[in-house]
Amino acid sequence: MGFERMWGELAQVGRSARTGGYFRQPWTSADNELRAWFVGEAERRGLDVEIDGVGNVIAWWAPDGVTGPGVLTGSHLDSVRDGGAYDGPLGVVSALAAVDLLRERGFVPARPLGLSVFAEEEGSRFGRACLGSRLAVGALDWAAARELRDRQGVALPDALAGAGLDPGDIGPRADLAERIACFVELHVEQGRDLVDRGEPIGVASEIWPHGRYRFEFKGEANHAGTTRMEDRHDPMLTYAMTALAANKQARLAGQRATFGRVEAEPNGTNAVPSRVTAWLDARCDSDAALSDLVEVISRQAGERAERDGTAVEVSEESVTSAVSFDADLAARIAGDHEGGDWPVIPTQAGHDAGIIAAAGVPTAMLFVRNPTGVSHAPSEHAEMPDCLVGVSALADTLERLAGPS
Amino acid sequence: MGFERMWGELAQVGRSARTGGYFRQPWTSADNELRAWFVGEAERRGLDVEIDGVGNVIAWWAPDGVTGPGVLTGSHLDSVRDGGAYDGPLGVVSALAAVDLLRERGFVPARPLGLSVFAEEEGSRFGRACLGSRLAVGALDWAAARELRDRQGVALPDALAGAGLDPGDIGPRADLAERIACFVELHVEQGRDLVDRGEPIGVASEIWPHGRYRFEFKGEANHAGTTRMEDRHDPMLTYAMTALAANKQARLAGQRATFGRVEAEPNGTNAVPSRVTAWLDARCDSDAALSDLVEVISRQAGERAERDGTAVEVSEESVTSAVSFDADLAARIAGDHEGGDWPVIPTQAGHDAGIIAAAGVPTAMLFVRNPTGVSHAPSEHAEMPDCLVGVSALADTLERLAGPS
Repeated sequence: MGFERMWGELAQVGRSARTGGYFRQPWTSADNELRAWFVGEAERRGLDVEIDGVGNVIAWWAPDGVTGPGVLTGSHLDSVRDGGAYDGPLGVVSALAAVDLLRERGFVPARPLGLSVFAEEEGSRFGRACLGSRLAVGALDWAAARELRDRQGVALPDALAGAGLDPGDIGPRADLAERIACFVELHVEQGRDLVDRGEPIGVASEIWPHGRYRFEFKGEANHAGTTRMEDRHDPMLTYAMTALAANKQARLAGQRATFGRVEAEPNGTNAVPSRVTAWLDARCDSDAALSDLVEVISRQAGERAERDGTAVEVSEESVTSAVSFDADLAARIAGDHEGGDWPVIPTQAGHDAGIIAAAGVPTAMLFVRNPTGVSHAPSEHAEMPDCLVGVSALADTLERLAGPS
Repeated sequence: MGFERMWGELAQVGRSARTGGYFRQPWTSADNELRAWFVGEAERRGLDVEIDGVGNVIAWWAPDGVTGPGVLTGSHLDSVRDGGAYDGPLGVVSALAAVDLLRERGFVPARPLGLSVFAEEEGSRFGRACLGSRLAVGALDWAAARELRDRQGVALPDALAGAGLDPGDIGPRADLAERIACFVELHVEQGRDLVDRGEPIGVASEIWPHGRYRFEFKGEANHAGTTRMEDRHDPMLTYAMTALAANKQARLAGQRATFGRVEAEPNGTNAVPSRVTAWLDARCDSDAALSDLVEVISRQAGERAERDGTAVEVSEESVTSAVSFDADLAARIAGDHEGGDWPVIPTQAGHDAGIIAAAGVPTAMLFVRNPTGVSHAPSEHAEMPDCLVGVSALADTLERLAGPS
C-alpha cells in the first residue's frame, strides 16, 4: 500500500545517525525537502497545490463544479530537536493515504477536500508553537511575527527568504477559518492512554490549557573556590529547588510541570553563576488549575530566592486556554465503526487543530496508539497495523464530511 | 607612578560594555593584544624577552656576567568569561612596577630576575587550568596537550597557530623548574580573609586540594505535556537534587562545592531532557576531605537517580592535591616589614604558583586585599593604595631573593 512506500521515503530525512532521532527544523534543508516531497505527492495525485508565504501548504481535491467551504485534514512535517518520526508526519502521510483509499472506494467529494501541512508547528525555531496555523487563521499578526528571531538571531523573514518563500509586506493570507467548514487532524498519541485501554484509535475531547514561563534567577558571580559558602548568592540553588518544587507540585495536583531548558551564565565550572534562566512548561486540566500551579511554583521560587540572597523574575512567554473540540463531531467519529466506540480522551499537547478550533472551525482529532507512550524522542512509535486502522478511520471521517449531505 | 599608567592601558582590553566584565580568552585577539603589550613594556625596560611556543613569556633582567638559576615573578593575563580586571594582570603589572621601583632604589640584581606571563591560567578555553605553566615545568606532556580541543572543536595547535605561535612537534621547552631558583606570584585575594583581618597584604601558606568532576545524568526524553509525571525518567530532577546536595554537604563539612556549569539535551522547553551534564567544582582543606565530599555527593546523586529512574555517571576531569608553599620563604616575607607580620593564609584557588611549587621550586604568593571578596566577576577589585603596598612588598621580596647573598 502507498502508506508504507511514503513512510519509507521520509525515514532518512533529517535523521541523526547517532541518536536515531529527527531534527526537521523549520525552513532548513530537511524541512524544505519534506515540503517539496509533499508537493510532489499532491501533484502526482492531480491535486491543486497552494503554498503561502510562510510555507503552509494546502493541496485541494475539488472536482469541477465543487466549490464552497472545504473539509481540511493534515498535520505538520517539522519536528522538535531529536524528536520522533511520527509526531506530524503520521497525519500528513495518513491524509494522502486516505485520499488514495477514498479513490479506491470510488468516492468523489461533494465539497472541496484539502490536505494541509502547517509550518513550524513545534515552535522549535522561533519559540512560537503552531506559528503557521496561527498566521493562517489570523491568531497571530504578521506585524508581530516578522519581528521574531531564532536563537542565532535570524529574523523570520530572512529564514523564509532562505527557504525560497516570501510573505511580502502584508504577510500570508489569514482567512483560513472562513475558507473551511471543518478540520480533522490525525496524530500519534503522545501518552499511554490508548495502550492502557487496549484501543488502537482515540478521538480528542479537548486540549488542556498550557503555558510557557521564563524564570530568571539572578545572583552574584563569584569564584567557586575562594568564596565561602555563606558569602554566596548562587542562583543555581534557587533554580534547583524550583525545578524540584515544580515536579512535586504537579504530582500533588495531578497536573504537569517540566523544566526542560536551562541556561547558566557564565556557565563556567569554577564560577558561581551570575544568572540562571530556565523555562517552565505547565499543563493543567483547567485554566484555574494552571494559574494555581504556576502561582505556587513561583511563590516557592521566591521564598527560596530570599534564603539564597538571589532574585527571581517570572514572565509568561505564552499561555493557551483550554480548547474544546466539536463534541458532536467527536461522538460521531468515535461511534462510527464496528466493534464498539473509540474512547474520547483529552490531550495535554498543543496542536494546529487547537488553533483552528479556537478560531471557530468545527474540528476533530484522531489519535493512533503509541506502544511506549514516548513522544518528542527517538523511541516515539506506532505499529503499522494501527497506522493503517488510522488511515481507514480518517477516510471514513472524510467520506462523511466531504460526501453528499 | 608607572603602575597607574599601565593599569589604565589595560582597562579596555577584552572588556564588555554591557557587563563591565572581561573575557580575555587565551589566543584570541584580547589575549594576543595583552601579550604584545607586555612584550613592549619589557622591551622599553631593556629586558630580554623569550616567548615559547604556547605563548608563555619571560622577560629577563640579567646584567652582564649575571648568570645561574633566576628569580622569577609574574602571573597571567587571560581571564574567565565575564571575569574581573585584577585576577592575573595585577601580578603582571606589579612585577613591572616592582622592577621600576628597584631601579629607582639603585638595585642591581646578582641573579637573573625574570618577569613571567603564563598562558591559559584559567582553563577557560581548553578546560585545563594553568596550561602554560604545566607545560613549562613538564607537568603536562605536549603529546597530551596537543590533543586538547576547545568547545568549538578547535585543536590547541590550531589555536596557537592562529595567534602566530608554533610549538613544533616536540612542544615548548619544559625545563623551567631547572632554570629558576624560586618563584613569587602576587595576586588579588579572592575572598574576604584580609578584609576581615584589616590587612592590605597576606602571604600564602598552601593551596587547598581541588578537583573538577563531570556528572552525566541520563534519563529518557519525552513530551513535557503528554507524559504523566509518574511515567517520566527526568534527569533534570536528579541534577537539581545533586546541586542542592553538593551545597549542603560542603556547608556541613566546612568545605567548598559548586555546580556552576550545566548543559541539558535537547534543552527544549516542551521536552523532558534525555540528558543533563553538569560539572562539580570541589575544594577542601585536605585530600581526604575532598574525596569524602565528592563521594557523599556522588552517593546522594546515585540514590536520587534510582528514585527518578535515571542513571548518573561521575568522572574526574582533573584533581590537584594540596600544594604547600615554602614555609621559610613565607615566614620571611610575612615578617619583613614595618608594623608587624602580615598574615599567612591558605587559598582555595589554583595558581601557576601551585604548579611551579609542585615541581619542586621554592615558591611564594602575595595576596592584595579585595574589598568585596568577589572574584571571577566584574566587581572583583583592589584599592589603588593597597596595590601600591603590594608593589612595594614585591620589590622588597625580589630585592632579598635576587640581591647579593
